[in-house]
Amino acid sequence: MRLVTLGESLARLDAAAVGPLRHARSLGLGVAGAESNVAIGFSRLGGEAAWIGRVGADEFGGLVRATLAGEGVDLAAAVVDPSAPTGLLVKERRTSALTRVWYYRTGSAGSRLSPEDVPEDLVRTAQTLHVTGITAALSATARKAVRHAVATARAAGVPVSLDLNYRAALWEPDEAARELRRLAAEADIVFATEREARLLVDGEGPAELAGALARLGAREVLVKLGRHGAVACCDGVLHRAPGVRVEPVDPVGAGDAFAAAYLAERLRGVPVGERLAVAALAGAYVVTAMGDWEGLPSRADLEREPGDEVLR
Amino acid sequence: MRLVTLGESLARLDAAAVGPLRHARSLGLGVAGAESNVAIGFSRLGGEAAWIGRVGADEFGGLVRATLAGEGVDLAAAVVDPSAPTGLLVKERRTSALTRVWYYRTGSAGSRLSPEDVPEDLVRTAQTLHVTGITAALSATARKAVRHAVATARAAGVPVSLDLNYRAALWEPDEAARELRRLAAEADIVFATEREARLLVDGEGPAELAGALARLGAREVLVKLGRHGAVACCDGVLHRAPGVRVEPVDPVGAGDAFAAAYLAERLRGVPVGERLAVAALAGAYVVTAMGDWEGLPSRADLEREPGDEVLR
Amino acid sequence: MRLVTLGESLARLDAAAVGPLRHARSLGLGVAGAESNVAIGFSRLGGEAAWIGRVGADEFGGLVRATLAGEGVDLAAAVVDPSAPTGLLVKERRTSALTRVWYYRTGSAGSRLSPEDVPEDLVRTAQTLHVTGITAALSATARKAVRHAVATARAAGVPVSLDLNYRAALWEPDEAARELRRLAAEADIVFATEREARLLVDGEGPAELAGALARLGAREVLVKLGRHGAVACCDGVLHRAPGVRVEPVDPVGAGDAFAAAYLAERLRGVPVGERLAVAALAGAYVVTAMGDWEGLPSRADLEREPGDEVLR
Amino acid sequence: MRLVTLGESLARLDAAAVGPLRHARSLGLGVAGAESNVAIGFSRLGGEAAWIGRVGADEFGGLVRATLAGEGVDLAAAVVDPSAPTGLLVKERRTSALTRVWYYRTGSAGSRLSPEDVPEDLVRTAQTLHVTGITAALSATARKAVRHAVATARAAGVPVSLDLNYRAALWEPDEAARELRRLAAEADIVFATEREARLLVDGEGPAELAGALARLGAREVLVKLGRHGAVACCDGVLHRAPGVRVEPVDPVGAGDAFAAAYLAERLRGVPVGERLAVAALAGAYVVTAMGDWEGLPSRADLEREPGDEVLR
Amino acid sequence: MRLVTLGESLARLDAAAVGPLRHARSLGLGVAGAESNVAIGFSRLGGEAAWIGRVGADEFGGLVRATLAGEGVDLAAAVVDPSAPTGLLVKERRTSALTRVWYYRTGSAGSRLSPEDVPEDLVRTAQTLHVTGITAALSATARKAVRHAVATARAAGVPVSLDLNYRAALWEPDEAARELRRLAAEADIVFATEREARLLVDGEGPAELAGALARLGAREVLVKLGRHGAVACCDGVLHRAPGVRVEPVDPVGAGDAFAAAYLAERLRGVPVGERLAVAALAGAYVVTAMGDWEGLPSRADLEREPGDEVLR
Amino acid sequence: MRLVTLGESLARLDAAAVGPLRHARSLGLGVAGAESNVAIGFSRLGGEAAWIGRVGADEFGGLVRATLAGEGVDLAAAVVDPSAPTGLLVKERRTSALTRVWYYRTGSAGSRLSPEDVPEDLVRTAQTLHVTGITAALSATARKAVRHAVATARAAGVPVSLDLNYRAALWEPDEAARELRRLAAEADIVFATEREARLLVDGEGPAELAGALARLGAREVLVKLGRHGAVACCDGVLHRAPGVRVEPVDPVGAGDAFAAAYLAERLRGVPVGERLAVAALAGAYVVTAMGDWEGLPSRADLEREPGDEVLR
Repeated sequence: MRLVTLGESLARLDAAAVGPLRHARSLGLGVAGAESNVAIGFSRLGGEAAWIGRVGADEFGGLVRATLAGEGVDLAAAVVDPSAPTGLLVKERRTSALTRVWYYRTGSAGSRLSPEDVPEDLVRTAQTLHVTGITAALSATARKAVRHAVATARAAGVPVSLDLNYRAALWEPDEAARELRRLAAEADIVFATEREARLLVDGEGPAELAGALARLGAREVLVKLGRHGAVACCDGVLHRAPGVRVEPVDPVGAGDAFAAAYLAERLRGVPVGERLAVAALAGAYVVTAMGDWEGLPSRADLEREPGDEVLR
Repeated sequence: MRLVTLGESLARLDAAAVGPLRHARSLGLGVAGAESNVAIGFSRLGGEAAWIGRVGADEFGGLVRATLAGEGVDLAAAVVDPSAPTGLLVKERRTSALTRVWYYRTGSAGSRLSPEDVPEDLVRTAQTLHVTGITAALSATARKAVRHAVATARAAGVPVSLDLNYRAALWEPDEAARELRRLAAEADIVFATEREARLLVDGEGPAELAGALARLGAREVLVKLGRHGAVACCDGVLHRAPGVRVEPVDPVGAGDAFAAAYLAERLRGVPVGERLAVAALAGAYVVTAMGDWEGLPSRADLEREPGDEVLR
Repeated sequence: MRLVTLGESLARLDAAAVGPLRHARSLGLGVAGAESNVAIGFSRLGGEAAWIGRVGADEFGGLVRATLAGEGVDLAAAVVDPSAPTGLLVKERRTSALTRVWYYRTGSAGSRLSPEDVPEDLVRTAQTLHVTGITAALSATARKAVRHAVATARAAGVPVSLDLNYRAALWEPDEAARELRRLAAEADIVFATEREARLLVDGEGPAELAGALARLGAREVLVKLGRHGAVACCDGVLHRAPGVRVEPVDPVGAGDAFAAAYLAERLRGVPVGERLAVAALAGAYVVTAMGDWEGLPSRADLEREPGDEVLR
Repeated sequence: MRLVTLGESLARLDAAAVGPLRHARSLGLGVAGAESNVAIGFSRLGGEAAWIGRVGADEFGGLVRATLAGEGVDLAAAVVDPSAPTGLLVKERRTSALTRVWYYRTGSAGSRLSPEDVPEDLVRTAQTLHVTGITAALSATARKAVRHAVATARAAGVPVSLDLNYRAALWEPDEAARELRRLAAEADIVFATEREARLLVDGEGPAELAGALARLGAREVLVKLGRHGAVACCDGVLHRAPGVRVEPVDPVGAGDAFAAAYLAERLRGVPVGERLAVAALAGAYVVTAMGDWEGLPSRADLEREPGDEVLR
Repeated sequence: MRLVTLGESLARLDAAAVGPLRHARSLGLGVAGAESNVAIGFSRLGGEAAWIGRVGADEFGGLVRATLAGEGVDLAAAVVDPSAPTGLLVKERRTSALTRVWYYRTGSAGSRLSPEDVPEDLVRTAQTLHVTGITAALSATARKAVRHAVATARAAGVPVSLDLNYRAALWEPDEAARELRRLAAEADIVFATEREARLLVDGEGPAELAGALARLGAREVLVKLGRHGAVACCDGVLHRAPGVRVEPVDPVGAGDAFAAAYLAERLRGVPVGERLAVAALAGAYVVTAMGDWEGLPSRADLEREPGDEVLR
Repeated sequence: MRLVTLGESLARLDAAAVGPLRHARSLGLGVAGAESNVAIGFSRLGGEAAWIGRVGADEFGGLVRATLAGEGVDLAAAVVDPSAPTGLLVKERRTSALTRVWYYRTGSAGSRLSPEDVPEDLVRTAQTLHVTGITAALSATARKAVRHAVATARAAGVPVSLDLNYRAALWEPDEAARELRRLAAEADIVFATEREARLLVDGEGPAELAGALARLGAREVLVKLGRHGAVACCDGVLHRAPGVRVEPVDPVGAGDAFAAAYLAERLRGVPVGERLAVAALAGAYVVTAMGDWEGLPSRADLEREPGDEVLR
């Protein structure tokens, strides 16, 4: 097993039309979860990915499991919890430019993740462990599960990847900064937006922020700049990657696509500059399709630009 | 204000097609809640109805409020709670004959209903207070709110109506039986299915059950028998009403329709036998339309049989 | 050209779900019109049918025209009226057993049909002229158009078919009875339901009614009995046809299907008994599919029972 | 009651996809009406709004009533007319840039509005009366109702707001100009687009037009310039407000949003410049959501830019 | 691996509404295939199932793979064929009682199945090999693949299950009878409808037919009677199982559900009578949900009757 | 009959949402076909158009026929082939900028077109024969049918129009170039994109390419440049037409719209420059509506710009 990740995957409800959700009469049903998005993205690029997490013994849990298994993600370490419901995420495109999200994950099966759910062998034999700030924010036991997975990986020499993924709805900035700094100090690879970086460190532009994050401990730091590309600080060297020019239809999931592709290319031994280009392209694919992860590219997709029109 | 009721109204999600919910790709969005169903039914028949309850400061709460207000239900005593989400109900037609329901109402705004939310003046000036076993099962404070409303009504001489509405997912049978017996002892009118009646009292058939329930204290007891009509024990006299022969398309909501129509006709001074007939007809209207309450009849609807085809 | 008919075709709006229309958030869009239904049915069974009528120079008029042309109905005599809108029909399945209809046809292009719109050559060279009580009720000019078409046909020896099609929303019973008696006296073939027959004549059962209608002048009278089949009085001889046992999903259009198939088989020289059987089968096809006319059978369809399951 | 308005609200039918309406197979169902849009917008911003008008005793009338009541609009003065249908509006996005509209409102309940429908007390106790050129164009009685409401308001010292809202489908330019000039002379506040202003007065640019309109009598004149903002002439002083940069998804309703927000802020004592900014922001909210009014902002919405992405 | 099966799975297109497909404006998209249905059914009941087959390197192939993997079916032996398209099945509910099917499988990837695609080890280590007459009819190479799989299983002592599954669209009755008799002679378990049985053997009723089929060689023969249950001839002993009374909503898939459940229970050592009961119940589950396989029961589902209404 | 064309029309399946098709749960159903698009476009502009081709005796064939007939296209020469299915085209918007297409047309009825299907009288009495490279690529018999139609037209002095329409999925570039050069040598009018032109001739920019194509034999050559307009070489004279600035929603069909309008205006005697302007406008109409042909303009549409907003 090459990539192992852990977190909460939820049923996702969203409206087809732009506008206040209350005026919708039906909601689309799918699957959400930053970590499982990364697992799917990694799997689509040809890697093997395993997801650790809990879902309820209900239809939404069945949907999460069927979706991940259908995308080739290994679920041997996924637990069905008969005593708690699968969490929900409700997504509203309030205007064409403003997306809002509500969670139903208090007491959910996913938030009951605990260190016992983490199979140590699975982590030790991975080539990368990927964790995010979301899982650390779900509950006390989930935070312990993240710490335990990270410690297990480090002890076994497995590189640890961390996406800060700060969610203001889940915890206070102070608490988040404390925990994320602690995790960043133990990570080999750190992904952050500019805003997330500023939560942990000071710095003027993305390059300064990347350097400051790197000083927390990670050898590779990626600061994502949306349509403006990304800045990387790898082994002390700065790299800049331009963005891919596309017309987005759904902005959610770009960061997960970026992380998935970066980690996949990294394990294939691709140089940093090229990794960044592929990661940006993966992000462009996701935002030019509806859904958080549905548009993630396959390796065949990467061989053409998402803006190339093909009519055969 | 004539009818006052209190409880939790939720956003309702259901699949258009029959089958496991996980295979749906979109869910219908509407409003659910036994007590608000009764308020809507009462309002459609020309009465004034007020609903007491809490919703979140989110889109689902906005949907609940707009829907009830749109049906003419008074919301002056409805509270918007900025610190808790609106509850959800997920409804699956697993097979054409088997409906399953999941709740997301733990910690919901609605379950945080408390005695302070009950405007005493509103209750005292009502002509009927209607409560259900569901509200009593939501939380300790909600149960207190129900008891407080009932006590306030009794003190003011306002008739109390109780629909047992036992929900196995919300509490244990023993606890339910204890609380429902207590409420039934203070009610003037009690609605029950046969199964619910047996939770509180012993008895062979519906007539015996109605009599036994009446001995708990209520002057009017209605035992609903689905397509087989209902049995009433009013002031010690037994009445039997036949069912209305229709082909149901959605079984949910029949009991609320029955209660709403019975209470509306009762306040208009209609004799028991006729009340029962109108109540059964209202139930028939609801189950021959999709949705828990959408098919509730107006007074004009009652003037024709739901099985009369009208092509003008 | 074999069958010529005249009337108003409208855009049809209906809800997918059963229940009060106000709760629908989208309405299906199609085409309605008793006379064009008959033309489509006749065309599907291999005949040539022409439709005379007016539509507006708007998208609904375009829809009506494209739909009829797509079904092979000749529109050479269909007029596009730039100064009036195409009429609308709104259809509600209030309950699973109760269908309600609203019209927006006052001042519509279709209701402005007048004798000048009737190409006399087209009528004279037809093998059957089919008219209905609906067109006669639309407006004074439409009524004149019907009378003019009937007179033209009679003068040329073209058989006249009349479906009484009484619509209570369009005229008063007295006025309707007067006009329909007048038209029935000039028709060769008359179609009626029992209720419609009673508007014109007295009689106990369908056989008596058929006889009484025949005495008004027509050589062939068909009294339709829904699932119970039909009774015919042809040249003074009574025929009874049993109904076809099917489970209907949309009751509208059965009568038009019956008329279309009866007239098609009649022109092919099929004996009365067989005509009635084919007419009943055509009705069964229509009511076991959604839509007023969409389920009308082709000749190939008639070779199997609608209740035969075919899995190849 | 603070804002009182009168007009016709209709059922609104529109296609989900862009293209000729005839190719749609279903139409969305909602509510339209310039005046009720303003009432909803005013209500969402915390004001009390009452709507005077007539709907039919049909499902579309029920939809209009439930929608307005659901948005908190007072309907005590809304009349259900059993003898006329609720009007319809059909909306086609012919291309991504070209919207066409058809009305079915001839003889509609709404167009039968008459002076007797206007409760004088309601108008006299309002803080603003808002009328539009649409209502004045519906019928002779509707025009009288507008004039009567305006006269009643003026006599009671209630400020009168007029949105010219010229609709070419409803009346001739000459007749419109005559009536609108008459109304503008009695109004305190006038809203107009440049094109509408030119119907009444001469002038080169928006500033000149605003001044010329003001000379007809109103103390406040607002000339709306779409994405380019607005020009106001208030008590002889010119104000310019820039537009809000957004990517519109549905252009309809911007003017009503502008008027609603302007009037709401005006009654709260907000200075002109700020009123204009809020009005422009409200317009931006509406055009970045589907529907004529669904995207109208709440007061909470106004605290963030519609282009701010919020992912919690 | 316990159950191994081989065949063609296709993309499935069907209309939501009943009626001629040409009037649909959208078609549902799913997955079909008798053998993969059995694999899913077996997997849902807790078994391990593997599917051998070919799909195209296209989106429909991706859908087939994701769906089967999502249901826990092992796809290690599923081949992606870059040079042929995934087959399609188009399903029309012509009337509420008449289903028609069209195939686009000539030259499809699935029909190119050949003996080389059958991993011998997988077959040899299975506990049951399940094949159908459909695969044998797809192409010469597919027939050889079936024969090869059967021979491999027999040589290794693995029981062979055969569902005759005669499809008239795929081959002539004579050729089918010849091949199916040959396969039946090598099978241990044979599933057939009455009509299919008569293609191979003579006999009056189901019992006689079961006996006659058994004489071809199989130790267990199941003759399925739809709502009337089934007759089994096992080791020379006749068993009769009654049908389960349900109201079907989609008749397709009952036979596959029956086979899957029978084979699952058989491997668990459940006695014949009980196997038949579970198989009938599984069939009832499938026909009371939309879709060919979506309604297949889990083991938890089997603990309640599909006609039990559960409202918690 | 004025325009005659021949080719394959297919059922078209496409997803409403942008993203990988496998995630769609329903597909829109319509009609596709370059030649029938041209026929529809020509018919909408007031011309008479006839289509020669074959469809299956199935529902998709019925859809193709009803759609073309509904658009006024003459189908007297359209053959229903009972022994082959109607072809399918599956269309995926993989991203907002990348459209992919899959065909199911091998062995389809349409690909079985042969010279015997071409009614010589129909071609000889046409005013223009329009053919495309697609039909020539379908099969050996289809190619012969194209050649036969072209030869028949030339012999009768009927101008031949050729749209190169190179489809890489149907044939190899070498074979295509050979056949298309041969057809271009016999055509009077040739339509090409820059890329298609380069397949046949050398040249730097569009003007050179147009000239080079013209030297193959045609008197009028049109090189289409998408949003940049078109270049024409007519009787040796170069013309340039600017593009129409619109925001496209569906890029497919622009070329067919261009050809249809160019040919329609040409037959009306409109000068080249104006023909090009109308052709570009027609293309703009098509790409600003969903569907390959649905947005084709009527003559009334041409009188306004597609970017003019009309709100009456």
